[in-house]
Amino acid sequence: MAREMLRQGGRSARIQEAVHRTVKELLAQMDRSEITVPMIAEKAGVPPSTIYRRWGDLSDLLADVALERLRPIADPEDTGAMGSDIETFIVDYAEEMSSDVGRGMYSDILGSSSDSAARCCHYTIHHLETLRQRAEGRGEPGFEVDAAMDKIVAPIVYHILFQDKAVTPDYCRALVSDFLGGKG
Amino acid sequence: MAREMLRQGGRSARIQEAVHRTVKELLAQMDRSEITVPMIAEKAGVPPSTIYRRWGDLSDLLADVALERLRPIADPEDTGAMGSDIETFIVDYAEEMSSDVGRGMYSDILGSSSDSAARCCHYTIHHLETLRQRAEGRGEPGFEVDAAMDKIVAPIVYHILFQDKAVTPDYCRALVSDFLGGKG
Repeated sequence: MAREMLRQGGRSARIQEAVHRTVKELLAQMDRSEITVPMIAEKAGVPPSTIYRRWGDLSDLLADVALERLRPIADPEDTGAMGSDIETFIVDYAEEMSSDVGRGMYSDILGSSSDSAARCCHYTIHHLETLRQRAEGRGEPGFEVDAAMDKIVAPIVYHILFQDKAVTPDYCRALVSDFLGGKG
Repeated sequence: MAREMLRQGGRSARIQEAVHRTVKELLAQMDRSEITVPMIAEKAGVPPSTIYRRWGDLSDLLADVALERLRPIADPEDTGAMGSDIETFIVDYAEEMSSDVGRGMYSDILGSSSDSAARCCHYTIHHLETLRQRAEGRGEPGFEVDAAMDKIVAPIVYHILFQDKAVTPDYCRALVSDFLGGKG
């Protein structure tokens, strides 16, 4: 009776929550290559068929969990000026994403055939758009978000992924300074 | 007797060749998620233990095959001038790597824990270095290879991987032109 009273949306949300939480716990305990759908299903208390029906396969589920972790929960910090807003956002982003956890999220997002990679980009574009609007609201000249993606975000993500060069705060600041200087 | 006469290097090279060829054949026939080490071993005629000993795991083997395909076999085309050399190289690179085969190679290279990602970068750096030296040999001003990686290669690879934007020849040419214009 109690079960029948649960609305579909409520049950659906609870399954999502249980499965996501289980994946995060497993990722903290073992290498992702050891994780399987039956293992997640057993620990989360849902049938494996529910996971396959809802998420497709393991790579799509891992991508969904990674994307959920990356979903913006707050606007980037307001430091009072466009240059320092962009710098703070970018240095924090690079620090988070070059950690083992960050690299694992990229790997999950890029390993999936779903549209999670493009959605991940759009989170970053959304944040930069917030910074652009804030700058223009202050009477600052603003900047092109697409150009910031190409000239600041892309090289940082490239070097994090390919591990050919350390992505230091100084490197990030030089990219921002080069980008803003090039606009003057 | 014949077997005993084979040098270690010869046998080792033949195993590598058979395993790589088998992986390429399987990749052409099925999705990479369906490929297993025992499947490769049986088709290549080597024991699975040989593959594990030599390559670690499946992801490292797939990365090794992808890297072998990306290994430079010739210098980039000589078009007679630095700008068109870079443009031709970059447009071809983007076209190849945004294909399904190219995206699969990135996925294999980034999915491995080996150093294949950094080695993949170095192939591109090597080609750009060839173009830089060729330009200077012609008396042209040359360019900074690191800057070309950040300003041309990184955004192209970013958009191929994250699929947020089509990487067209025009987009590539604009990046090259912006990079070279910025030096003037």
